[in-house]
Amino acid sequence: MSVSTAATPAALAPPADAPLPVLGRDVSVPLVTGGEVAYAALDYAASAPALQRVWDDVAAYAPYYGSVHRGAGYLSQLSTDLFESSRRTIAAFLGCRADDQVVFTRSTTDSLNLLAAALPADCQVFVYETEHHASLLPWRDAQVAYLDAPRTPARAVEILERALADRDPHGPALVCVTGASNVTGELWPVKELAAAAHAHGARIVLDAAQLAPHHPVDITELDVDWVAFSGHKLYAPFGSGVLAGRADWLRAAEPYLAGGGASRTVARRADGGVDVDWHTTAARHEAGSPNVIGVHSIASACKALTEAGFDRLVAREQELVSRVRVGLAEVPEVRVLSLFGDDAPRVGVLSFVVRGWNSSHFAAALSAEYGIGVRDGLFCAHPLVRTLLGGDPQEAGECGAPESGPGERPLNAIRVSFGAGTPDEHIERFLRAVGELVRGGARWTYRTEDGRCVPDRGAAQV
Amino acid sequence: MSVSTAATPAALAPPADAPLPVLGRDVSVPLVTGGEVAYAALDYAASAPALQRVWDDVAAYAPYYGSVHRGAGYLSQLSTDLFESSRRTIAAFLGCRADDQVVFTRSTTDSLNLLAAALPADCQVFVYETEHHASLLPWRDAQVAYLDAPRTPARAVEILERALADRDPHGPALVCVTGASNVTGELWPVKELAAAAHAHGARIVLDAAQLAPHHPVDITELDVDWVAFSGHKLYAPFGSGVLAGRADWLRAAEPYLAGGGASRTVARRADGGVDVDWHTTAARHEAGSPNVIGVHSIASACKALTEAGFDRLVAREQELVSRVRVGLAEVPEVRVLSLFGDDAPRVGVLSFVVRGWNSSHFAAALSAEYGIGVRDGLFCAHPLVRTLLGGDPQEAGECGAPESGPGERPLNAIRVSFGAGTPDEHIERFLRAVGELVRGGARWTYRTEDGRCVPDRGAAQV
Repeated sequence: MSVSTAATPAALAPPADAPLPVLGRDVSVPLVTGGEVAYAALDYAASAPALQRVWDDVAAYAPYYGSVHRGAGYLSQLSTDLFESSRRTIAAFLGCRADDQVVFTRSTTDSLNLLAAALPADCQVFVYETEHHASLLPWRDAQVAYLDAPRTPARAVEILERALADRDPHGPALVCVTGASNVTGELWPVKELAAAAHAHGARIVLDAAQLAPHHPVDITELDVDWVAFSGHKLYAPFGSGVLAGRADWLRAAEPYLAGGGASRTVARRADGGVDVDWHTTAARHEAGSPNVIGVHSIASACKALTEAGFDRLVAREQELVSRVRVGLAEVPEVRVLSLFGDDAPRVGVLSFVVRGWNSSHFAAALSAEYGIGVRDGLFCAHPLVRTLLGGDPQEAGECGAPESGPGERPLNAIRVSFGAGTPDEHIERFLRAVGELVRGGARWTYRTEDGRCVPDRGAAQV
Repeated sequence: MSVSTAATPAALAPPADAPLPVLGRDVSVPLVTGGEVAYAALDYAASAPALQRVWDDVAAYAPYYGSVHRGAGYLSQLSTDLFESSRRTIAAFLGCRADDQVVFTRSTTDSLNLLAAALPADCQVFVYETEHHASLLPWRDAQVAYLDAPRTPARAVEILERALADRDPHGPALVCVTGASNVTGELWPVKELAAAAHAHGARIVLDAAQLAPHHPVDITELDVDWVAFSGHKLYAPFGSGVLAGRADWLRAAEPYLAGGGASRTVARRADGGVDVDWHTTAARHEAGSPNVIGVHSIASACKALTEAGFDRLVAREQELVSRVRVGLAEVPEVRVLSLFGDDAPRVGVLSFVVRGWNSSHFAAALSAEYGIGVRDGLFCAHPLVRTLLGGDPQEAGECGAPESGPGERPLNAIRVSFGAGTPDEHIERFLRAVGELVRGGARWTYRTEDGRCVPDRGAAQV
């Protein structure tokens, strides 16, 4: 008996220009204009579909699921071994140093909240205002310096160096930075920022939520102290995330959650209180029964990306990025949002606004009339979107009201994002849809309902 | 297109005396003595196998997985609706009051840590020393009174009433109590404890991790303020848990995790800082992308238990409990651990020690020679096990060393636990195995390896 990988050879070695098979590739959705169409999932930056290989691995393991740690039965031992071997697989995927810890969390948000709870006393935190809220907000007990949005990668390094050099007192410090923006997809100069942080006696954590699914991340080569990412953006949507990196702060911190698994021994004292001896391994911060399926799914995704040839996947995704850039550039009404300039390197994540259109309306039409799933809004990065749009943004406008006129400042934006599972046809359909909507307008009318822009099925149609 | 329940009619309405179909029911494991045998999963109290119905529902949904909240695409809206309808299903399953909140966490441990972070200022916590560490340890910022182990349910109520009446100052207070012990399976007088708590101006949270899978839990009828439980013990092992109950403390508390989803708006201030407006709904404590599959799986389990007839499942499990009690009582060397007496009502969770045997050795022999998975150790409830064994317990003994002699105090215990998926044959095999091991001894030799008791494959066998 063994838990074998159920992946087919085809899943492991698709043609060099083919997407990796993902769940949902055969799902059809209804169009408001009649008929059905294959769903085009272009919201990978929020949550990516599961790789077929990941699903097959989860399905192969599920009957063997058992309690992790301390169970005496065969499946408990098998599950414990799978859990710990997944940790090693993920450590290898991230290029971890020998003494790094890989701690399992539920998401990037959870990982960064864990690190925030493990800061040494009087630690100052330096974070750009351009970060996702998951990187911007967890540092509640620390003194936080919010750095202004830089307009070039070099400027990002300069701003950081000055802030770190000027910090008073010159005590422990942590820099938190994204590897790829969840709004613009732009790559940040992680290696240079890490060097700057270390030169000034600070540490650095990389928010790789948007980077890890699109680009190899090597913690040793980048020389960052920690990396955080989520399974659900890495084609493994089973509720687990990762914080990997330096063990010292984690070992010295109070356990993130208090409970079983994190505690080695618990005994009542003579005075009626309780003495606890906590683990100093990753288990210290993993109290409660581990999410074995979630952890296994991440390890499976790491293997699938590696075995498929991550460089090949990157090359193919960059080809799609180029097509989207060129296609959108041909529509004068479209403005792609960018901090570092239109030609800056980026992963398959692009946000844009359309002159004369409310973004929620535009996104609703892409869904209802073309079966394309994108996201509209502020993308949990309000200060960045404010900077990019040039004013106070709002989560959603009144999509059914008269559209905002040319030149009017957009309230929010549309984001298209894709990855290893995206077929060329999705990108082609998206570009065709943008062109048709901008030139011909929506074919249906829409109204706002519970904050969502939806087709108005009762209205007479154009 | 819709996400339909893939459950078969047979899964919904099995014969009245049949177990519910679970994953792994056809898994065979090797025996050290040769051959294979169907695995008997008797460690439900740690993690139960997934119901086949739960797995089928997860598999039916997985291709439709999409980003929850704010995605404009069809699958995002479908996933958001599924996520929120799961919340309503679980609220109904728990008999929640109209203004209760259902917050999704990753486990019972996480749920209780969340509640611990939401205690009002100067709140005192009252918890029996007999609790699982997940209930015993999370109250780190509070003044905690550890109540001595009661030997009757009535005594539990008396001890609590005295402690609450005597508290000084007479400020806000929280009682945390398990519904069914994870060591003895014994039921606690939850309704009476809730009445006592409320009579003394305190609130009460029910740790239903071991109760909810075995017995209907009605928050209104029990009149508890909160209920916490885990999916992985409720046949839904996909990384989610629940905290359900009063909204006021949760609304007033700082968000459990800081990040996207919990924040409504984030804006930089003129002084360079950041202003955050947090949600006041359950989303306040659910930052990060929700684990839709985990939440959906719990809702599926709630539906499956309800539709199968929870009373029927309880009756069948009680029949198994009786068989185990009678069977173990026929073996004089076996002592079943109990706080409230041998006849006290309990769910399908029993711990015991065997005179002359190290518990780890016994559990290893059950696994290796009979394909039975139980758990040995201290069950993350060290003070309780100490009370039940009468001295300082240890996680594992030297299983391969000469067995401890008759009368010697055992270091730890063996736990057998079962539930809705357990066939009669597993119980029969377990009782037969206990009798054979006690009468005839193990047929193999064992040694300790990495803290685990394992068959010594190199040794000459008896």
